[in-house]
Amino acid sequence: MSKAQQTKTRIIEQAAALFNQQGYAGSSMSDIMRVTGLQKGGIYHHFQSKDELALEAFDFAASRVQQKFMGALKGKRHAVERLIAILSVYEQMLDDPPVQGGCPILNTAVESDDAHPALRERAQLAMDAWRGLIHRIVDKGVMRGELHANVNSDTVATILIATIEGGVMLSKLYGDASYLERALNHLKTYIQNQLAALI
Amino acid sequence: MSKAQQTKTRIIEQAAALFNQQGYAGSSMSDIMRVTGLQKGGIYHHFQSKDELALEAFDFAASRVQQKFMGALKGKRHAVERLIAILSVYEQMLDDPPVQGGCPILNTAVESDDAHPALRERAQLAMDAWRGLIHRIVDKGVMRGELHANVNSDTVATILIATIEGGVMLSKLYGDASYLERALNHLKTYIQNQLAALI
Ligand SMILES: [Mg+2]
Ligand SMILES: [Mg+2]
Repeated sequence: MSKAQQTKTRIIEQAAALFNQQGYAGSSMSDIMRVTGLQKGGIYHHFQSKDELALEAFDFAASRVQQKFMGALKGKRHAVERLIAILSVYEQMLDDPPVQGGCPILNTAVESDDAHPALRERAQLAMDAWRGLIHRIVDKGVMRGELHANVNSDTVATILIATIEGGVMLSKLYGDASYLERALNHLKTYIQNQLAALI
Repeated sequence: MSKAQQTKTRIIEQAAALFNQQGYAGSSMSDIMRVTGLQKGGIYHHFQSKDELALEAFDFAASRVQQKFMGALKGKRHAVERLIAILSVYEQMLDDPPVQGGCPILNTAVESDDAHPALRERAQLAMDAWRGLIHRIVDKGVMRGELHANVNSDTVATILIATIEGGVMLSKLYGDASYLERALNHLKTYIQNQLAALI
């Protein structure tokens, strides 16, 4: 990687952490300069606007979440195991988040839904990828008889993601992991008792 | 109500809708002037700072949610009925929200948790009130034998709030009510099948 590419990558990583804590609207060029240690010219050398940086920073943050999912799923074969692996990524969300500031998909969805169409679209794409991941696990699981025949992948994806993200929101609001723990334990029980086929 | 009080109330209501869509950080004094139709002086006559207005606007938004809960709970006696009444408030969250922009508690929690301590504290208080409401319904329900003896009110409050707010986030991200509908249907089943005592 060239030195210019290294700098660009560093700006994206540092901006992603800034935006994930302070929000995109709430972060100024001064804030970006502060966290990167660069002057305006140094940043504008790589990005035409704050908006362009925001979109690249979000894509980076979403890719870090996706990497975590891929890592957790490695070597897990059974649908129940694979769904629980998805939960395990969020067990780490408070202590060791993919980007400082919690779940970047939750944060960007909430900030952008009524305010920033381009960021909203990126958040939808990231959410599509997460839902698709769960859909494929469930559909394969049903096909292999690992999950009950009547399990609906839209339902499972919605319940898992909604409960996880709501649990993250509560734990981050209070600075108390027990909310997210309760949410994830509830989902483990849901997966094992309602989704898993008995064999 | 005096004319001055009417104006102050109007500013709070209009600012609440603005902040709930654009965020507190993302809303400038110009935006506040635009939505209220007032000059800077007209706003600063009632509020010492944007921050002071933000806190009053949040308290107003949270009180609108609380009003909706109280209205839905009127005349409902049984714990199962009362928990389902809480869900019904969120059935309306997309078409007829207490304040434009979705759930103000979710929005403010996510924006403030890493960025705005005073707003974060107000969001915690609003969340405490919601959790307390659910705690009291569950504790009374267990005491009356309407819910299973082993039902834990911390768990129920966490699961209900997390799943509801995650469902709101998904439906608002996609502009599609089906995510929130799935989340609420899942919770109805949870209440009726896992919490309700069989009599
Ligand atoms: Mg929003
Ligand atoms: Mg935040």
